[in-house]
Amino acid sequence: MPMAERILDHIRGPQDLKGLSLKEMEQLAQEVREELINTVTRVGGHFGSNLGVVELTIVLHALFDSPKDKIIWDVGHQAYPHKMLTGRRERMGTIRQKGGLCGFCVRSESPHDIFGAGHGGTSISAALGFAKARDLLGRREHVVAVIGDGSFTAGMALEALDHAGELGTDLLIILNDNGMGISPNIGALHRYLVKLRSDPHYRKAKELFEEFMHFMPLGDAMVDALERVKGSIKQFFQPRVIFEDLGCTYLGPVDGHNIADLRDILENAKQLKGPIVVHVVTVKGKGMPEAEQNPVGYHAIKAVGAPGGKKLPSYTDVFVETLIELARRDERIVAVTAAMLEGTGLVKFQKEFPHRCFDVAMAEQHAVTFCAGMALGGLRPVAAIYSTFLQRAFDQIVHDVCIQNIPVVFAIDRAGLVGNDGPTHQGVFDLSYLRCLPHMVIMAPKDENELRHMLKTALEYTDGPIAVRYPRDTVLGLEPPERLECLPIGKGELLREGRHVALVAIGTMVQNALQAAELLAAEGIEAAVVNARFVKPLDKELIRQVAEATGAVVTIEDNVRMGGFGSGVLEFLSEAGLYSVRTLVLGVPDRFIEHATREEQLEECGLDPRSIAQRVKDWLGLPARVPLRAVP
Amino acid sequence: MPMAERILDHIRGPQDLKGLSLKEMEQLAQEVREELINTVTRVGGHFGSNLGVVELTIVLHALFDSPKDKIIWDVGHQAYPHKMLTGRRERMGTIRQKGGLCGFCVRSESPHDIFGAGHGGTSISAALGFAKARDLLGRREHVVAVIGDGSFTAGMALEALDHAGELGTDLLIILNDNGMGISPNIGALHRYLVKLRSDPHYRKAKELFEEFMHFMPLGDAMVDALERVKGSIKQFFQPRVIFEDLGCTYLGPVDGHNIADLRDILENAKQLKGPIVVHVVTVKGKGMPEAEQNPVGYHAIKAVGAPGGKKLPSYTDVFVETLIELARRDERIVAVTAAMLEGTGLVKFQKEFPHRCFDVAMAEQHAVTFCAGMALGGLRPVAAIYSTFLQRAFDQIVHDVCIQNIPVVFAIDRAGLVGNDGPTHQGVFDLSYLRCLPHMVIMAPKDENELRHMLKTALEYTDGPIAVRYPRDTVLGLEPPERLECLPIGKGELLREGRHVALVAIGTMVQNALQAAELLAAEGIEAAVVNARFVKPLDKELIRQVAEATGAVVTIEDNVRMGGFGSGVLEFLSEAGLYSVRTLVLGVPDRFIEHATREEQLEECGLDPRSIAQRVKDWLGLPARVPLRAVP
Repeated sequence: MPMAERILDHIRGPQDLKGLSLKEMEQLAQEVREELINTVTRVGGHFGSNLGVVELTIVLHALFDSPKDKIIWDVGHQAYPHKMLTGRRERMGTIRQKGGLCGFCVRSESPHDIFGAGHGGTSISAALGFAKARDLLGRREHVVAVIGDGSFTAGMALEALDHAGELGTDLLIILNDNGMGISPNIGALHRYLVKLRSDPHYRKAKELFEEFMHFMPLGDAMVDALERVKGSIKQFFQPRVIFEDLGCTYLGPVDGHNIADLRDILENAKQLKGPIVVHVVTVKGKGMPEAEQNPVGYHAIKAVGAPGGKKLPSYTDVFVETLIELARRDERIVAVTAAMLEGTGLVKFQKEFPHRCFDVAMAEQHAVTFCAGMALGGLRPVAAIYSTFLQRAFDQIVHDVCIQNIPVVFAIDRAGLVGNDGPTHQGVFDLSYLRCLPHMVIMAPKDENELRHMLKTALEYTDGPIAVRYPRDTVLGLEPPERLECLPIGKGELLREGRHVALVAIGTMVQNALQAAELLAAEGIEAAVVNARFVKPLDKELIRQVAEATGAVVTIEDNVRMGGFGSGVLEFLSEAGLYSVRTLVLGVPDRFIEHATREEQLEECGLDPRSIAQRVKDWLGLPARVPLRAVP
Repeated sequence: MPMAERILDHIRGPQDLKGLSLKEMEQLAQEVREELINTVTRVGGHFGSNLGVVELTIVLHALFDSPKDKIIWDVGHQAYPHKMLTGRRERMGTIRQKGGLCGFCVRSESPHDIFGAGHGGTSISAALGFAKARDLLGRREHVVAVIGDGSFTAGMALEALDHAGELGTDLLIILNDNGMGISPNIGALHRYLVKLRSDPHYRKAKELFEEFMHFMPLGDAMVDALERVKGSIKQFFQPRVIFEDLGCTYLGPVDGHNIADLRDILENAKQLKGPIVVHVVTVKGKGMPEAEQNPVGYHAIKAVGAPGGKKLPSYTDVFVETLIELARRDERIVAVTAAMLEGTGLVKFQKEFPHRCFDVAMAEQHAVTFCAGMALGGLRPVAAIYSTFLQRAFDQIVHDVCIQNIPVVFAIDRAGLVGNDGPTHQGVFDLSYLRCLPHMVIMAPKDENELRHMLKTALEYTDGPIAVRYPRDTVLGLEPPERLECLPIGKGELLREGRHVALVAIGTMVQNALQAAELLAAEGIEAAVVNARFVKPLDKELIRQVAEATGAVVTIEDNVRMGGFGSGVLEFLSEAGLYSVRTLVLGVPDRFIEHATREEQLEECGLDPRSIAQRVKDWLGLPARVPLRAVP
């Protein structure tokens, strides 16, 4: 039978997994793994965690009836095998590319992607919601959350576990424990899991106790002693498992690459009532020796032929290099990341200052308040968190930092459009959600050297919180400055004079504005260009000056238009009574921007230099002399 | 000696507690409690939790050297005894009043308020920050976090505990376990704590095991059996305490009203290394029988003579009454609160629909994603969360609701200025942090009947997320409508014609705008008044119409001006090219508004009718004919 040779070709959906024998499932795992390695090494994408869940995915789809049964993947960057087995195998080569498959689960892509994700720690909450809906509406399907041990360090996962234990409804939580987030996991919970999975005695404790009692000579003294401890003896001989304390049944640990064991334990779990935690131990990068040995490097990989080698450094590189330089001169400087040592670049900082670098796990809320405490204790903390993840700590920024006006430095990486990760990871709200907060100072550099100066500025500034946001992008390649300088707070700079219109841009959009001004100049339109530098406080004097000089102000940002930088400029013009000034606010439109390259996304938003020039020209009401690229 | 008769009179600060005998401390506790009862029943304020920590506060200040040692009170509404013992006793009668003491800890008030608070669950993070600052800067002070069991259900507290266990630094965490948040606590962790504190065997387990082994006749079979379990026996005979699994030393439980025991255990804890959790069991309302028996009712109380009896219902009352009415007709409707059953009014909903009401504990993040899951599972969830607490769930709103465009209804109570709770509880950012999110619909009612219609509208709307925000205020006292109606999405209403200026207001500011229009009319200024109803999507047509008709648009909101409703109107006017329209954005200024009554706060922000009228008149450049109240 040909299936024995190539089972994967016959899997059009989960239903085709139902009849497979153990041997066939093992072969299928091999095929999925091979194809995964081939595809991802060719087109790039998340890697290690996908190789780790091949067997688990097969067994889940064989045992459960998706999409009737709800399987919810936490984060979703480990859902590639799930995508392959749910009708999307042919499109795997398009993953994370414009118009292609998303790198995470997304509801619009397949009925089997029952809940979208991208950030970690959400799956138990969502699954519990599905479970209660099932209960109240009288249905009977199974609900499964697959969550990594990294995501388990997120506060909301623990909140959800607490609630699941309270509600006691049927819910299967699969703890996919590979000891890794993107970086190796940290935190006391992680240590505890390591202990749990490495100690076979945990599993066997109840049986062992029974044997023990069987062999015990029951003399009088013994009976007496037993009497004295009878209240406590029962509970102490159960495995000391946190999950059970919290009202869940704990099963495991089980080898996540042994299909027979996995099937047994999950079949068992399927029969049980209430919330069940199945502890599955997997190896990140399983089946590819180099990925197993370097799980951090192989968390995600770039496509073959993607720019490599002698490319320019990233803003992240410049951030951490500057931070190290500053930290050498000021030992009060400490750095905090939330499970993103590599992503934020802080892994380098950690090498030089191991005791001044804190990876707090996937715990942005804690990270920010922890920084507030350190700042009040006399340190100069830098919270290096991606724009999208900083959303998790919004209340802590308001309540623990801004209200108390504490000098915490926020280094906001991945601000603006971020490319292939798509909507869940776009950093396009930070200017809006930070600008509305009293005491907050917000900067964005026009290039890497300004980033250096801004970091210096931030660390010299002790009046309150200060943020610098920078993009997921390579730098311009400028010569580093002789020395770092403190920028005056709330002062921008006029980069180019012009009398017809003023382009007031922030962050990396300054470069696009300069290029747009060149294009406009070729059309006879003289555009002034302002590098605003500060979103808050605004350089009101400079903006007033260019507004009065040109009568036409265009703001440009890679944040949403609503409530962002441009909105701040409009507020100022209104406040200043500069009503006669014409205004155009360019930024990310009021919709979520799908995955594509950052360049494609900027074009889609009309924020590339040509689009900007065209839009400004149209807006100024001049006839088009040269056909520029059409604006979507 | 006179001290024996009135010790409290001699306590000017913590230093005066150092030499007290046990007996004197007990008397002091009695005096503090009596004075607290007298003061709070007279002027109003938080009550039950303060009575619960009298002894704990005395012992802490006797044993530790504040402010060198850092004592951090979680939430801070239990810090009244702390305030009394740290030099603020005379001012206790001013608590929560304009210019008086704050109802929470606040750094500007005293060096002993080492970290501000108001929201729950932040203290361990802050304390850990202080502890690491101490370590790195070579100091040796003690750091103490006092956190209630209610706050322990907040995800960030668990994140912080995880990190504390990992770091292993010296830190004293006092778990003030009274079994209550504001409502009785729920969640599996709470159940676990109940078990822990009710079982004396937990404490004594190690000693008992030693006795047990001592009495045991060690025959061959016994040795053999022991051999078989030796790997596990050690760990199983330790108390099964989650805190120890997470790397903390656990001490307790101890009676929090027994000063001798408290002093012993805390003296002991002070000597130990690493993170220590001391489990202190207290009684909310201790010492006042009616408060002990009704801890929910006595969580906070109103001042004697404060409006009581036959007053108007609150917006909260109308919300829950309407929700119950709608839920009777649609069994898919469920309600979710995060530890605010009473505050949100849902306690009434729970009575009628116990299985359709979920109190998820202090877990706003989980609450929102739980709602997302329930909505996708076929229910119609209403997340009833205060504006200020919803900040905790910002990322979940973005990532789990808006990106996936899931029809979750947000009932945002305590929106706008909230009065006596002050800066930490102001609901003045929600329009800014929600307006920037694609797919979000935002409404605010001008009166209680519009709230009813908006709730109906929200529950009929299935295209995506929808929010209705309403204030901490009594309603106007209107006759309820015959039937609930669905409002057209994105449509406002013109309430008053006028040719000189258009007052475009949202929510309760519509009433103030109407009154301001009356005042302006008396001055010969004809002001149109628009009830915007929707912050998003805006009624662009109506705004354009009044803007073109008057050429002068004033927006009025009780949200910060930055990025709020007015900002949205400016964005529209810019977009629509209505540059010649003069604009004035009235709202909460860019600073934190201190505690006072809501009316005082509105005046301070220039949002009461007289201030609005005056500001509009000034702005229109007309000479003042009648002296109106000055605007700050």
